[in-house]
Formats: sequence, C-alpha cells, structure tokens
Amino acid sequence: MSRGYTIAIGGAEERLRDPAILGRFVEVCGGREARIAIIPTASRLSDTGPRYERVFDALGVSLIRVLPLATRADCDDPRWLKRVDRADGVFFTGGNQLKLSTTIGGTGLAELIRRRNLEDGLHVAGTSAGAAILSEHMIAFGDEGSTPRADSVTLAPGLGLAPEFIIDQHFRQRDRLGRLLTAIAYNPRLIGIGLDEDTAAFIAPHQTLTVRGSGAITVVDGTDLEYSSMDSSHEHDPVCMLNARVHILTEGASFDASSGRAQPPPVPRDDTDSAREAAS
Amino acid sequence: MSRGYTIAIGGAEERLRDPAILGRFVEVCGGREARIAIIPTASRLSDTGPRYERVFDALGVSLIRVLPLATRADCDDPRWLKRVDRADGVFFTGGNQLKLSTTIGGTGLAELIRRRNLEDGLHVAGTSAGAAILSEHMIAFGDEGSTPRADSVTLAPGLGLAPEFIIDQHFRQRDRLGRLLTAIAYNPRLIGIGLDEDTAAFIAPHQTLTVRGSGAITVVDGTDLEYSSMDSSHEHDPVCMLNARVHILTEGASFDASSGRAQPPPVPRDDTDSAREAAS
Repeated sequence: MSRGYTIAIGGAEERLRDPAILGRFVEVCGGREARIAIIPTASRLSDTGPRYERVFDALGVSLIRVLPLATRADCDDPRWLKRVDRADGVFFTGGNQLKLSTTIGGTGLAELIRRRNLEDGLHVAGTSAGAAILSEHMIAFGDEGSTPRADSVTLAPGLGLAPEFIIDQHFRQRDRLGRLLTAIAYNPRLIGIGLDEDTAAFIAPHQTLTVRGSGAITVVDGTDLEYSSMDSSHEHDPVCMLNARVHILTEGASFDASSGRAQPPPVPRDDTDSAREAAS
Repeated sequence: MSRGYTIAIGGAEERLRDPAILGRFVEVCGGREARIAIIPTASRLSDTGPRYERVFDALGVSLIRVLPLATRADCDDPRWLKRVDRADGVFFTGGNQLKLSTTIGGTGLAELIRRRNLEDGLHVAGTSAGAAILSEHMIAFGDEGSTPRADSVTLAPGLGLAPEFIIDQHFRQRDRLGRLLTAIAYNPRLIGIGLDEDTAAFIAPHQTLTVRGSGAITVVDGTDLEYSSMDSSHEHDPVCMLNARVHILTEGASFDASSGRAQPPPVPRDDTDSAREAAS
C-alpha cells in the first residue's frame, strides 16, 4: 500500500453543528467502516478522549478506540501497538505538544505510526498540539507577533510525517506569523504552514495540501529567499528576510510542495448570489 | 528644488534616551539649522505638541513651531500656511488618523504640504496616525489578525505623499498583517508597508525606502499576485491570495518601489563580536 494522508488541524475545529473537517477525516479513512484510534496524550483533561469518541460516534464510525497512553512504557505496550496496527486512522487531540513528544517520541508507537503512514496508508490527523507534533520539525513554543525575531521560536523533533512542512496552529487567533517566519529563516528548505482555528491542511500522499474549514492557511515559502540575517542577528533582534513568497489559502485552495505552486479554490457552481455582485 | 523625503514612523519611537529616528529626521531637514513645524492635530492631548517641541529642542533644532490646528478654518489660515511655507520639515504626531484627515483633508494646508513635498524639497514625517495619513490611500481602521478578511480594513483618502505605498503602523504590536493584506488585495498595484513601533521608513525622493529603528518593516508586494478571491468573498470570509512577495526589513535594509527589489542591511564594519559566532 502507499502513503496515507497527514491532516493538520489548527485547533478549535467545529465538532457538533457541522463537523466538516472531522467528517472529511472519517471519509478519508473509509467512512462508516473506518477504524479510528484516538490518542489524547497531549491533554491533561481526562475526558478529552471520550469527547472525541462521541464526535466520531456521531459521525457514524463503527470502531473507535481511545488509547490512554500516559507513559513511555504505555507507548511500547503491545496491547496498544496492536490497536494502531489495525487502525485506518489515528487522531491526536490538542493539549501540549511537548507532552506528546516527550511521551511518544522514539517509542514503538511513534515508529509504528510513521512507518504505517509512509508505507501502509495509515491516515494521521491531529488538532492544535496534535497538529504541531506531526511534522519532522515541530514548533515547541514561541512568542506572539507578526515580525520574526532571532529567539522567537523553539523547535523540537516531531513525529516525522509530512517532512516538507513545518506546522503552526491557532495562527490568526494567536498572531504567530513572526515565529513561523523565524522557523523558516533557520532553514528555508521547509515550507511553513500556519493554520487558523477550524481550518485543516489535508496533505495527500503526493504532498499536495488542500484546505478545509472556515479559516485560512498561510503558506510561507522561503525557497526563493534572497537573504536572511538570521546568522548574524542577536537575541531579541528582528530578523531581516528578503523575498519570502506567501499564499493565503482558503477552503478548496491547494499547494503542491513538490512544485511550489498554489491553486485557487475551484469555481463554485452557484455563484449567482454573490454578495459583491449584488452590491455593485 | 526636487521632491522631499516622506518619513513614516510606526509609533512609540524612542524620544529621550536615544532618539535615533527623530534625530535622523532632523539631519534630513538640515540639522541644527532646520525649521520644523509640528502638527499635533491627530491628538486629543493638549501637551502633545509641546512634548515634541522639547524633543526637537533637545536635538538642537533652532526653529520649532507647534501649529495648533483644531478646525478646517485653521488649516486655511494664512498665518499657519506661512509657517509651513517656511519650514524645512513638517512633523505629524500620533492620535487618530481620521481626526487628521477630516480636519486637514482638502484644505490649503494639505495642498501646500503636498505641493512643497513634491516640488520644493519639504520633508514630511509622521508617527502612528501621522504616518497613516501620509499615503494616498490611508488605512482608517480595521481588525486585528494575521489572515486577510473581506471586511477587515477601511480605506480613506490620505495626504497623497509616497503614492506607491500603503502604510500601516504599530504593526507587530497590534497584529495587523491581515488588514494590510486585505488592503493590497483590493488593488495589488500598491506596495504595503507595515511599520513596527520605534521603526521608520525613510522614503527618499526616488521612492526607495530605507529602514531606521529597532523593529522591522514588513513589505507586502502584491504585484506578482496570481489570484485573489477578494471580488467573490463575502463579509467576514477569509480571502484567498496566491503569490504575495514579503520582505522583512530591519535597520539599514531598503526597498526600491520602482524596481520592486529589496536590499539587505549593509555589512557592519565591526562584526567580530557577533553573539552567534561567539556561541558556536
């Protein structure tokens, strides 16, 4: 089998009224027949797992397992590894991404998820902290503010999925462009994606991401960067960066990491009631 | 004589310890011999003019006049026009840019400043609201947040200096990238510049801007924009924008509006004590 989807959600996704993002995740995993494993390890709240269990249940998923992985030993326990081995999709809840990385990193579970995502079509989704952990380079924490600063972001190794991307979440809501730019300035090889809340990047096996949700995804492409002062900036200094390419992607728009090309949303079928047209 | 400088300051510029930006403005205006007119009309505080008078006095400026322009009639009063006619530099304080535009807009004063800046080498500086008013298209008000929304910014006509640029201020501090992107999406002909606090764009007569100050200037160049959904976005919708070019400019870096090219800061003469090098 081939690679699975990697699905990064910016946090605060709609779960009750119109759970479009989670519904699309279920679809990708095979719909009602899907087997979904929920990993609530990032969260300190005991009901985080059961809450998502109810959401996926309402979406008609027949087999849902919450994996209560609290320790590194849990993450090497064959009982839980078996659950992941049989799953079509894994879902990481929000919380603290460092709790996730310190508990799961380097365990059999992390290795199994990475291998099955790469070779065996396992789809892996995460929201908020659960989105941050997905990439190879994870934003562990950082400052708010829209311009980059030499010390405004701290990176840590993540799960290693979607290795072309570096992911940030709660993007518009927590003013995080500066720290994403800083992360890109460290090494412009990676593509930064800043996810608004209730907005998801569905990264297909061939590394094209498509947007779902009510917000936007800010793509920061530093591959044409002409200059960055990162190597000579002192702590707290703003960082000079020339020629970053930025795309703001909304529902249906896409970005192909291999070509660096962005595509607008497909033209809607019924555009006749456009508010703008009515107003003119 | 030729065109004068237009100097846009992002607000909260250092005035006491090391007033580098205001000092550079005085230098541009001719140093100690400069004649500077202060226009505190944006501010509701009665001591705003006198406060700047003291700063410019400490910088050694010999002739400083505060113009207490409170009404549109004041702005056509020959007594005040004469002051501007004899000035080397005009300085607009902060406050509310709509108070400035509604009081000054279309008066003899606005016309005189624009004409003398264009033809007679008058240098015009403004901080915060005083920076917003400078451009042809002024950001009157808008929302916070880093992604653009169809209704997140309201434009109004400004003074009409530096017509290639659209200016926003308190940029990093008030999370204003989204509204600047929205303004650019309306018509990508203009170059957006987002000024951090204590940071200034010195726009030379030939429309090259150079950065002074402790923060950064975010340049949003939409001239290569491949797509924007602005025309079809409903109110509150996020706006899709593909292929915006972004430069983060720090002290000494520059941007040439005619060629669209950005330049890094000149290499410092004494770089041997670089914190990064010491740390490696």
